[in-house]
Amino acid sequence: LSRHAIELPVTADRAAAEPLSGQISGQLRAAIASGRLRAGERLPASRALAASLGVSRTVITAAYAQLYAEGWLDGRHGSGTFVADGVPDHAVAAGPVPVGHAAAGPQPGDATAPPPSRSSQTPSITADSGRPLASAVTPEGAIDLSPGMPWAAGIDPAAWRRAWRAAGAAAPAGQAGALGLPALRAGLAAQLRRHRGLLCGPDQILITSGVASGLRLVATALLRPGDAVAVEEPGYEKARAIFTACGARVVPCRADEDGLVTSALPAGARLVYTTPAHQYPLGGRLPVPRRQALIGWARSAGALIVEDDYDSEFRYDVAPLPALAGLAPDLVIHLGTTAKTLTPALGVGWLAARRDLVTALATAGAAASERTCEPAQHALAALLASGDLDRHVRRMSREYARRRAAIVAALGGLPAPARLLGGTAGLHVVLELPPGSAAPVAAAAAARGIRVDTLDHYFAGPPAVEGLVLGYGGVTLRQAETACRALREVVTSII
Amino acid sequence: LSRHAIELPVTADRAAAEPLSGQISGQLRAAIASGRLRAGERLPASRALAASLGVSRTVITAAYAQLYAEGWLDGRHGSGTFVADGVPDHAVAAGPVPVGHAAAGPQPGDATAPPPSRSSQTPSITADSGRPLASAVTPEGAIDLSPGMPWAAGIDPAAWRRAWRAAGAAAPAGQAGALGLPALRAGLAAQLRRHRGLLCGPDQILITSGVASGLRLVATALLRPGDAVAVEEPGYEKARAIFTACGARVVPCRADEDGLVTSALPAGARLVYTTPAHQYPLGGRLPVPRRQALIGWARSAGALIVEDDYDSEFRYDVAPLPALAGLAPDLVIHLGTTAKTLTPALGVGWLAARRDLVTALATAGAAASERTCEPAQHALAALLASGDLDRHVRRMSREYARRRAAIVAALGGLPAPARLLGGTAGLHVVLELPPGSAAPVAAAAAARGIRVDTLDHYFAGPPAVEGLVLGYGGVTLRQAETACRALREVVTSII
Repeated sequence: LSRHAIELPVTADRAAAEPLSGQISGQLRAAIASGRLRAGERLPASRALAASLGVSRTVITAAYAQLYAEGWLDGRHGSGTFVADGVPDHAVAAGPVPVGHAAAGPQPGDATAPPPSRSSQTPSITADSGRPLASAVTPEGAIDLSPGMPWAAGIDPAAWRRAWRAAGAAAPAGQAGALGLPALRAGLAAQLRRHRGLLCGPDQILITSGVASGLRLVATALLRPGDAVAVEEPGYEKARAIFTACGARVVPCRADEDGLVTSALPAGARLVYTTPAHQYPLGGRLPVPRRQALIGWARSAGALIVEDDYDSEFRYDVAPLPALAGLAPDLVIHLGTTAKTLTPALGVGWLAARRDLVTALATAGAAASERTCEPAQHALAALLASGDLDRHVRRMSREYARRRAAIVAALGGLPAPARLLGGTAGLHVVLELPPGSAAPVAAAAAARGIRVDTLDHYFAGPPAVEGLVLGYGGVTLRQAETACRALREVVTSII
Repeated sequence: LSRHAIELPVTADRAAAEPLSGQISGQLRAAIASGRLRAGERLPASRALAASLGVSRTVITAAYAQLYAEGWLDGRHGSGTFVADGVPDHAVAAGPVPVGHAAAGPQPGDATAPPPSRSSQTPSITADSGRPLASAVTPEGAIDLSPGMPWAAGIDPAAWRRAWRAAGAAAPAGQAGALGLPALRAGLAAQLRRHRGLLCGPDQILITSGVASGLRLVATALLRPGDAVAVEEPGYEKARAIFTACGARVVPCRADEDGLVTSALPAGARLVYTTPAHQYPLGGRLPVPRRQALIGWARSAGALIVEDDYDSEFRYDVAPLPALAGLAPDLVIHLGTTAKTLTPALGVGWLAARRDLVTALATAGAAASERTCEPAQHALAALLASGDLDRHVRRMSREYARRRAAIVAALGGLPAPARLLGGTAGLHVVLELPPGSAAPVAAAAAARGIRVDTLDHYFAGPPAVEGLVLGYGGVTLRQAETACRALREVVTSII
């Protein structure tokens, strides 16, 4: 079977894990999810597609059957297979890309849509391995550099299947557990010890459905209406919104390139929300003296610290610092999530804290029916226990490092005061821009099919810095390169 | 293999689906989950247990391996297999019980704990199929008649495994979908049409993580602080708590044996929360004239109706009425959940509403990161598409009907004013009691190892009725019988 026949590269280790039909269904799924194949469009006949790809017809039939079972395709209306109505309404669910071959990974344009007519067509999944992949980015297929999206297509499908098989083998519980699945809490405690220098027992861990759910519990259980909460400025918009919705008073506290400016911590705050591993969005890693100052402040103010460790797993240039919670386990509520390491669609996160706080937070969660799917907890426990999650994070770190390097290469040498910030960790960088230029740059980029976030959304008050937030979790290396070349042109023409 | 060797009955259809090792791991899991096997306790040697049960040693090894993988058991400390530390903190996760054999289903006491000493022991999973099962309810194993727990052990393990296998085969999405998985929304739309007389398209359905999450979205998206919300009195405590936490003003509106008393609807309410299929907790089915009055009131008041359809699937004596939403799709937000049909541990529910409302609610959900595990949505879509969910609901309806009949038989003929209410649907009945007697009855029941809810928790104001809420979702038929015989004695001695 030649590379020529199928665009998804077949590597030795993946060929075993991912049958051909899975590669083909993955390409079709991506085409439907991205809108390149539209509802009602007819797919090539399985016989014709098989001939064109040089595979057996059963491979195609299996791929179609899988997509049919998933709801992407519609029953044969007598004369063929069609894209189902009502799909898609979510982002690209592309097939897996082996990280070592990112440049040859799936791209928009791998599969082109068969015309909507029902006449016999030559199959449209054609092979052209010599085609420059960047050209596959069509004008109508915008490149989305919004931050916060991980590359879920990089998840090894065999590992994913194994994890859910384990989840399905566990007997369903009759009610939600108070703290979450014991096996998952034990696995996370080991993980936090190993990777984040955080010593805590499984009884100090509460499973959540993600950082937002953890923040809701903190606000509900530990704050009274009107309590002041210090939040990094710029910072995580959703954290501000959740605290405000729960009746707290958000007090912005300045963050700079090194993270939270601890000398600016407000008097009277009951809680401070911070992202010490990788300040969101500026990208700084909170230096040790500031960590000590933050803890000293909290101790003397009788305040608690919420440490959002949202993407500590991905670091490139510098070694990670241990979690802040390790320095003051009595004062810090440590929040983690799989939204960046795996996908937000899993809906599993956790918090680690003092036992009495965990009890109070779990009680609040039960009262509000904040639920975390238990089979998903089984699946994550399996991914932890097998080492599959660690392997995935290592592979993705290499892949994200490549994308980041491409962005730095494209945007690194812009004339001052434009400059890149926060490129040492995480899934985004910030491109600082001169005053008055961020909005026009974003608009000009949008006109060229590139969606970027402006930094002003991250400020509660007047923005102290202007710039763009460029996420590279949801795009391929080539898309990142293409987008950043275009951005460079736009920026150079405007500033 | 004889019935004598294994306590979980092996029926023809289940023998194929549930291997012996699964039955044995299920019994052990239940023993650990219920606390009968405690952390650190040593399990029988696999060879000895195999000999005692008359099965091959590989069956036992497989059972231990499964529990080890799930985190219930700890690594061999050199000299055996032990119950892991940190388990359990949630309720009984018993093995599956074939519904047609409920009387012979798993019971506390099926597996007794091996002594904590490490000396060689005869295996403790012994067989005694002639033992009266009711006597297996040990004094320390309380019977929990709290409402709201379904019989998750009744889920067919083969169907459950198939559903999660389908979930694992779907490519993980890189971000949460706006409305939820298209295939699930299509399946639910068909289900609502078929079973609830509700005509709506998949684009009128929003996937939630359950009723509580739906209520949070409604409160966040559609209410302003201080808006009045009418809530049934007595009613769902959590609904009141959620509306209050979101800043709304809860106005109790009387409910009687027929459900919401529509003549008592308060002027000025922006929203009314109601459970027309089966009033929670009194159990009435809202009659058609009241349905019309409710809709008329909402239309003239410019208010919306939230219909919590939480356990409409289980009805015994009377035919279900179509959903209220079918009568006024423009005014009713219809909430559904799998928390009663399958298990709250799944964390998947839905709401159906007008398109503009669905858009507003989805926006609020995205802003709050209210997430529903996407693989769980795939699994539920598979259970719907295969008919497995329908089959499960039909089987459980028969099983619940049996338990309900046992309760009615035990408590039906009590002297007035004691009487049973709401026995025609759902997973609980209410035992009305004379003033001043509910608390002493509940306390005396607790002393006999029977946990029951008193009705006063369901009132926001002074309770207009006294009584007990007796849930039978989480207990076996025999446990229900045992508990209700004891309750009868307690009630007769007190009132």
